[in-house]
Amino acid sequence: MRFGILGTGIVGKTFAARLDELGHDVVIGTREPAETLSRTEPDAYGNPLFSAWQQEHSEVKLGTFGEAAAHSEMIVNATAGVASLDALELAGEANLNGKVLMDIANALDFSQGMPPTLSVSNTDSLGELIQRRFPEVKVVKTLNTMNAYLMVDPAQLAGADHTVFVSGDDAEAKATVIELLRSFGWADIIDLGDISTARGAEMILPIWLRLLGALQNPIFNFKIVR
Amino acid sequence: MRFGILGTGIVGKTFAARLDELGHDVVIGTREPAETLSRTEPDAYGNPLFSAWQQEHSEVKLGTFGEAAAHSEMIVNATAGVASLDALELAGEANLNGKVLMDIANALDFSQGMPPTLSVSNTDSLGELIQRRFPEVKVVKTLNTMNAYLMVDPAQLAGADHTVFVSGDDAEAKATVIELLRSFGWADIIDLGDISTARGAEMILPIWLRLLGALQNPIFNFKIVR
Repeated sequence: MRFGILGTGIVGKTFAARLDELGHDVVIGTREPAETLSRTEPDAYGNPLFSAWQQEHSEVKLGTFGEAAAHSEMIVNATAGVASLDALELAGEANLNGKVLMDIANALDFSQGMPPTLSVSNTDSLGELIQRRFPEVKVVKTLNTMNAYLMVDPAQLAGADHTVFVSGDDAEAKATVIELLRSFGWADIIDLGDISTARGAEMILPIWLRLLGALQNPIFNFKIVR
Repeated sequence: MRFGILGTGIVGKTFAARLDELGHDVVIGTREPAETLSRTEPDAYGNPLFSAWQQEHSEVKLGTFGEAAAHSEMIVNATAGVASLDALELAGEANLNGKVLMDIANALDFSQGMPPTLSVSNTDSLGELIQRRFPEVKVVKTLNTMNAYLMVDPAQLAGADHTVFVSGDDAEAKATVIELLRSFGWADIIDLGDISTARGAEMILPIWLRLLGALQNPIFNFKIVR
């Protein structure tokens, strides 16, 4: 399938690498490709330069947000949540309409220090904001509740005996996303309901961050025991 | 140990019955004991009358919030979260000071319809509100993330192979609460950190409510797989 991934951070690169490995056709989009390629300093987390990463993933093409979206049958929002609506505007409504958009972002607001708060929560969610702004896009919220490496390779932890959630208004879009999740190795997938259920999935982030602090290891996940 | 339980709803009664069963000395507190005993209609969820429940748990004494708190070595806040601060004021600061307060409440606001939102979240929590209002009380947030029957008897689900969280500023108070949790059957207990980590535990409620809708069965819980 043709994928457009919005965002060249660790989540976008991890997703792109896994989709490439699975044989998909991937364009990864950024605001200014020339600027992304010209960076000479690692990011604040010490992640490698995009240019170095791309040399190891030469099948993955780099483009603008608009080029990535135009290329795709399915779009992955892997931007920082507080910047997602801007990135989607740059991608262009015409390039998005009618497509499935996997929203895996979290609207973490670091402006007040650590730990971050959520810029939208409780009475609304990022997933709903995106769905309202782009009513012709089939938004499916998923995969925002675990580390990027687990998102695309859940079997590395406890043989994938843990849970991923999906939220969205379009049943066919959710079925397509669930098929992709199974191809990643997910076995326990819970459909929470319509896109308003993204509030619950997004509001897990504060305890996720505290668990990261308590466990000192990002390779953990929620399992819904029932 | 002498326990004062604030709240005669299903959570308070379930907690009281379990503590009584384990041999503790329990007073359950309510705003107006005479009014609680005189009710002749089941509540909105069809739970039995308090008077009928008390006949089956005659060792548990009913009193005012103040009497329950004065009686206790440890206090359990099992009131509705939006009413907890009022209930604690009625219990009386002098009756609370110096004691461990297990806060198991959730500040669910049903005033805007279903599903409820949280009356405090993201930048604050009910646990923190209580700790700030009663600085001499040792507040430990715990057990707010699962059904009442599981709180006090986790082994009924998957041999207790699921997780409970604790948050609080006082290490000794947390150790006392953890000992009580083990006596209930809890095996996987994660200390999230200080009382501000209650935000994360409380913000799990929206997905808990959506999971209840999706699974149609309240006997489920989060396990942190790591």
